[in-house]
Amino acid sequence: MTEEKPVVAFLGPKASYTHQATLDSFPGCQYTLSPQITIEDVFASVQDNTASRGVVPFENSTNGSVVFTLDLFADLNARYPDILVCGEAYISVSHCLLGRHTEALSRSTHQLPSIIESPTSSGAATPTANIPNPGIPRTKPTQEIGHIKKLYSHPQAWGQCKSFLSTYLKGVERQDVSSTSRAAELVAADETGTSAAISSIIAAKIHNLDILARGIEDRSDNTTRFFIIKRASPPSSLSSSHPQTTAPSSSAESKNGKEKPWKSLISFTVHHSNPGALAHCLAVFEPFKLNLTSINTRPSGVAPWNYIFFVEIDGRREEGGEGAVNAALQDLAKVSRGWRWLGSWESRLK
Amino acid sequence: MTEEKPVVAFLGPKASYTHQATLDSFPGCQYTLSPQITIEDVFASVQDNTASRGVVPFENSTNGSVVFTLDLFADLNARYPDILVCGEAYISVSHCLLGRHTEALSRSTHQLPSIIESPTSSGAATPTANIPNPGIPRTKPTQEIGHIKKLYSHPQAWGQCKSFLSTYLKGVERQDVSSTSRAAELVAADETGTSAAISSIIAAKIHNLDILARGIEDRSDNTTRFFIIKRASPPSSLSSSHPQTTAPSSSAESKNGKEKPWKSLISFTVHHSNPGALAHCLAVFEPFKLNLTSINTRPSGVAPWNYIFFVEIDGRREEGGEGAVNAALQDLAKVSRGWRWLGSWESRLK
Repeated sequence: MTEEKPVVAFLGPKASYTHQATLDSFPGCQYTLSPQITIEDVFASVQDNTASRGVVPFENSTNGSVVFTLDLFADLNARYPDILVCGEAYISVSHCLLGRHTEALSRSTHQLPSIIESPTSSGAATPTANIPNPGIPRTKPTQEIGHIKKLYSHPQAWGQCKSFLSTYLKGVERQDVSSTSRAAELVAADETGTSAAISSIIAAKIHNLDILARGIEDRSDNTTRFFIIKRASPPSSLSSSHPQTTAPSSSAESKNGKEKPWKSLISFTVHHSNPGALAHCLAVFEPFKLNLTSINTRPSGVAPWNYIFFVEIDGRREEGGEGAVNAALQDLAKVSRGWRWLGSWESRLK
Repeated sequence: MTEEKPVVAFLGPKASYTHQATLDSFPGCQYTLSPQITIEDVFASVQDNTASRGVVPFENSTNGSVVFTLDLFADLNARYPDILVCGEAYISVSHCLLGRHTEALSRSTHQLPSIIESPTSSGAATPTANIPNPGIPRTKPTQEIGHIKKLYSHPQAWGQCKSFLSTYLKGVERQDVSSTSRAAELVAADETGTSAAISSIIAAKIHNLDILARGIEDRSDNTTRFFIIKRASPPSSLSSSHPQTTAPSSSAESKNGKEKPWKSLISFTVHHSNPGALAHCLAVFEPFKLNLTSINTRPSGVAPWNYIFFVEIDGRREEGGEGAVNAALQDLAKVSRGWRWLGSWESRLK
């Protein structure tokens, strides 16, 4: 019997952080990895069964939710009704400033001392026990960067490197591009040598760029969380034993839902004219001891100032309508305008 | 006695949507309006008393919260401890595509029919009662736009014009700039005539640009909500009778807090290790009949996957520690890790 490798779609290009997250969960030898241009392309590939699984960024620990992904789960145009989260992955994200230090530019080092002066004496804010170095970058350029006139990166990266950028590259023109890898590609193609990319160390190697600064993110524990998505009726091509993609077979342990760290994502809308509607929806999980771990909000598309809410809870929805999550969802149905279970998966947070 | 006009700082430049919101609340003849380059500059002007009031965008009805503003209220670096919301304003936002139709380009109208063909037959999604035209733009270009190779706008505008852009300008390079007015300025300076801006009709007049399409936003009710901010200890230069900036004098009516439509903004953090911590914090408002109207979440800056939550409630915090909001805040103090009252103001939502 010829067995085709299952296809996994991910937000590309190759060497992107999403690619790293994909390799973490789906070893390249067992899967056909298919880079996509946009997050929506990943959703579409899974919805139309072109791919068995998809990998998309969901939130960054420094810069918050990826609203593009939330909006695809909100699915206001009813294009992705069968998409479910079935796993997650965490990737440490460390950014570099990549560009060129031409010989001519590196010789003019008389500019260097003033430019890479330590900013710890700026006195912009009072240090406290909780915030020992408010707004001060953790690192400084290792090369002269006075020649940089333009920056390229993914929009999320600006928010993760605020302190470095406001200290060393304040006022420099920024251009958003679709990925940090694409940013490096554009800088490599710029013959003037006056542009720089916020990108990964891997991209520096691929595109043969100089590293002008390393670890420029505001926090050393900067991490991006990715979701693995599947269709609600999964194709048979993925092994059911893959821990990140399929629920374990029913057992006494997993039935309880508390022994294993599982999470579920649920969206709901409320009758905004009913006072207390939102509070009532948020209260349905408490009686079942389902810990509410996060909340996100996006416009509902129904009318201005109407929202769709996303909650994550500790717990797993079981087949057959049993268990605490199903019971809470039955209560949610009574008090919400509409709701949707968007999947349950095993936590991989250490 | 010489009386200086109070200074009101706002996110500029002139003719920006924030400028319109500012004029709505602060007539130019009575105030000195001071445009700022960034939202943070507005916060800083109010914090250091350079300005008596500030006006900043808070959320858009189509594209959601302005995270830059939320992060300034989160104030992780303790720079803006005295900022309070004291009012709000709503401005209808209608975007145009602005550029140049050169004579040479406008003569080559053989391209026109295929480009501005109605997209209603695309069949990309099934229309439903709730979503009669899923993802279909409300308008089409009034001029040939095949020559447009680059787009400039503010990041929020892309998310408000998704359908138009994906139908008529798919794949065209986009550059983020600090405001829609700045976008129009850059397009006016581009001598090739191949760039376009998503900007306002006012900017078309100021920069003498052609309107290539009108009303390109996804929803006709597209509205941005602005907050008016002040310092916790207000300077004496603003009249206490200004309805948008100061609470009314204590009276039987306002003491109750239910007769007048007031709102309050509150932020809090939770002990993430305590199961139920978030649910307990959200539950404190219900016993006092304080309707929870919206929730926002941002990274707390303490550790990855720790959040700061923002809630808006119906109700007003009264001086002297009385009233329902004060009572709820006392309960919030018992169950949260930390909390902050960020102001109460009169609703201006119609």
